[in-house]
Amino acid sequence: MAGGAACELCVAEGGVPVARGARWRVVRVADTDFPAFYRVVWNAHVAEFSDLVPDDLTLCMGAVVAVERVLREQLRPAKINLASLGNVVPHLHWHVIARFDWDSRFPQPIWTSAQRRPDPPPTQRLAVGLDALDAAVCGALATLA
Amino acid sequence: MAGGAACELCVAEGGVPVARGARWRVVRVADTDFPAFYRVVWNAHVAEFSDLVPDDLTLCMGAVVAVERVLREQLRPAKINLASLGNVVPHLHWHVIARFDWDSRFPQPIWTSAQRRPDPPPTQRLAVGLDALDAAVCGALATLA
Repeated sequence: MAGGAACELCVAEGGVPVARGARWRVVRVADTDFPAFYRVVWNAHVAEFSDLVPDDLTLCMGAVVAVERVLREQLRPAKINLASLGNVVPHLHWHVIARFDWDSRFPQPIWTSAQRRPDPPPTQRLAVGLDALDAAVCGALATLA
Repeated sequence: MAGGAACELCVAEGGVPVARGARWRVVRVADTDFPAFYRVVWNAHVAEFSDLVPDDLTLCMGAVVAVERVLREQLRPAKINLASLGNVVPHLHWHVIARFDWDSRFPQPIWTSAQRRPDPPPTQRLAVGLDALDAAVCGALATLA
């Protein structure tokens, strides 16, 4: 799989920058339906999780778990959804998404059609604001290499 | 989240049994659209990946990566998809799915609507049969605790 200019995660952050290590970064996806939606992006262009050497597997999964824990602590979601798909952009990135029983697709995956339109809208329902959430995610990742 | 009789992954395997450790099992999902679809199920009832202690995180991810590697080696898929969702069944399980450019949803996630109907059907297109694939998955997991 080619990286470089052909890959949007090689040339752009992939979301709102939240934290960065030497080998990974965490961005928040600006998604009004799912505001508590982060991505752990591997900085180097690799397609599959199993392309990583063992230490990097541990590091990458550590970042995913750290983001998951912050979302659970701060938001008390109904469920966390984790996914590494990359069919369209085959550059390793993990989706970490807080799901709520009121969200537009729950309990179906976020990639399905909307079942409802939450009112008030999702960002107003979160227990903390997105700036505070970003800061908590960033703080949790501070000790990761 | 209650386990026991209320949870289908506490009372049933969750697919065709392929391999089992003390704390995890691997099953194959009988899905005609996606025949190379395995699940790594945590035997104990926990809802979230981050509920696991560090050694168990490593063990669980090791099983997921081992299955991914077998699917890549045996089938040369366009992409591997990994996901831990559990909105409907909140008992930790990882989906490990080999995706192909001819499959019914590619490049969209498997949870979207079908875009095409592969002919010949998916099972006839795999480079190896499902019995051989199960055996390869089982073999790759033999050294995992």
